[in-house]
Amino acid sequence: MAHNIVLSASTAATKCSSQVWRAALKKAMDANKSLPNAKYIQVATTGANASMDDQNDESGFPAIRTVVFRGFLDRDPTKVTFVTDKRSKKVGDFAVNNKCEICWYFPKSREQFRLRGFANVITNESTDEIDIRDRSISWKKMRPGARGQFAWPEPGQPRLPEHEEAYDVDRLIENEDEFENMWPKDNVLENFCLVTVDVNRIDHLKLKGNKRYLYSREQNSEGDTRSNNSANNEEEEKNEWMVCELCP
Amino acid sequence: MAHNIVLSASTAATKCSSQVWRAALKKAMDANKSLPNAKYIQVATTGANASMDDQNDESGFPAIRTVVFRGFLDRDPTKVTFVTDKRSKKVGDFAVNNKCEICWYFPKSREQFRLRGFANVITNESTDEIDIRDRSISWKKMRPGARGQFAWPEPGQPRLPEHEEAYDVDRLIENEDEFENMWPKDNVLENFCLVTVDVNRIDHLKLKGNKRYLYSREQNSEGDTRSNNSANNEEEEKNEWMVCELCP
Repeated sequence: MAHNIVLSASTAATKCSSQVWRAALKKAMDANKSLPNAKYIQVATTGANASMDDQNDESGFPAIRTVVFRGFLDRDPTKVTFVTDKRSKKVGDFAVNNKCEICWYFPKSREQFRLRGFANVITNESTDEIDIRDRSISWKKMRPGARGQFAWPEPGQPRLPEHEEAYDVDRLIENEDEFENMWPKDNVLENFCLVTVDVNRIDHLKLKGNKRYLYSREQNSEGDTRSNNSANNEEEEKNEWMVCELCP
Repeated sequence: MAHNIVLSASTAATKCSSQVWRAALKKAMDANKSLPNAKYIQVATTGANASMDDQNDESGFPAIRTVVFRGFLDRDPTKVTFVTDKRSKKVGDFAVNNKCEICWYFPKSREQFRLRGFANVITNESTDEIDIRDRSISWKKMRPGARGQFAWPEPGQPRLPEHEEAYDVDRLIENEDEFENMWPKDNVLENFCLVTVDVNRIDHLKLKGNKRYLYSREQNSEGDTRSNNSANNEEEEKNEWMVCELCP
C-alpha cells in the first residue's frame, strides 16, 4: 500500500469506493463554484534531470505551476485532466518522471485536497486510440480563443519583437466566431496536449473542524495501480480504496 | 547563471535590483489584499527519498502543500518565510533536499509568481544566533490560537479517540486572552519551526496582457547564491539580478 504512515491495529482504516473521495471533492467544488480560482490547481513535478547531489545547478528543483482543472475523464472519474503545450517545460518533466502531485485549495470552505498520481501526456504523437479520442474531445471543449494559444511562439523562450503580433488577440477577443474560424474544433493543433493524472492517493484537509482524511488506492497483484481501470466494474471498485482519518 | 533558457545575443536580458521583482510582487499583494487566500502559497519539494527508478513505491513523488505566507524576512527581503511543525513531513523533505519552489497565484490581478530557492528550516535545535532570533520573532507574531497547534498530536499520524480533546479549541476561540495565557509569547514551543526560503529565481506571469518575466540571481564567484546577503549593500545588490522577458 502507498501509505506513508504506519497503520496500527487500533486504526480505523477501512475499505471504501473512490466515490467517497470523489463526493468530498465534488462537494468542495460546488461550495466554491462562485470563485473563479476554485478551478485552478497547482501541479508539482520533481523537475527534469533531478539530482540530489549538485546544489549549484538547476537540477534537483521541483517545479510547480497553476493550471486550469479540465474535469475528470468521463470514462474514468479517478483521472484528473488539464491541458498543456507540447513545448512547455512540464512535458519534459513528465517524460523524466511522471509522478506528480496536485494541490487544490478551496478558499470558501477552507479545504485542501492533495492528489497524487501518475501523469499521462497525450501528444499529437500518441498512437493509443483511446488517448487520441480523449485528446480530440478535450480540444473540442476548449474555448476558441484558448485554442489559439497553442499556435503562439514557444513558451519560455526569450520574447522578441517579431513575437508581438501573435499575442495581439485583443482585436478578436470580442468575436468568438472569428476565433472559431481561425482555430476550428476539428483541427487539433499539434502542440496541444491533454494530461490525465491517474490518482492513487488523496490527502483531504478540512481546516474547519480540523479534520484530515487519507485515501489511498490499493495496489493490485501486479503492484501497478496504473493498470487499474475498474470504474465499469462497480463491485470490484468498491474495495479498491482505503480511507484513514489522520491528525491534521 | 541559473537560467533554463538560452539567452541569445538579441535578448534583452538586463541587470537589475531585487527591488524590481519585489515591487511587482508587492503590487500584486496590494491588488489582491481583499482576498484572504492571496496570503496562501503552495510549496513544492522533491519529496524525501526521491528516486526516479522505482515506480511502485512512494519514492520519487513531489510533495505540494498550501501554507500561509508569513512575510519577507526583515533583515533580508529576498527571503520568503512560513512556519511549520517540526514533526511534519516537509521538514523531512527539506532535510533530504532543501531546493523548493513556491507558487503564488493572485486571482484578482490574474498573476502567477513562481519563486524558486533554498529552504532553511529553523528548529528548536538551531544554534545560529540570527536564526534563533528570527524564530523567536516569528513565534511572537503568531496569533495565540495558532501557537497552540504546535502542541497538537503528531500531524499525519492516525487519529485516535484520545486525540480529540487536543483539537477542541472551540471553547476558547472566543477568548484570545486565554490562548495568550496558555501559549505565551515568551515560550516558543519546541515543535515550532520557521522556514526561510532564499529565493534565487522568480518567474512572473501576467495573464492580463500575456506578459512573462524571469528574474534570476547571478551566482557569485563561489557559485553559491545562498551566501549572498547583500541587502545592506545597495550598490552591490543592484547588479545581482538579471531580468529577461519571456514568451508566456
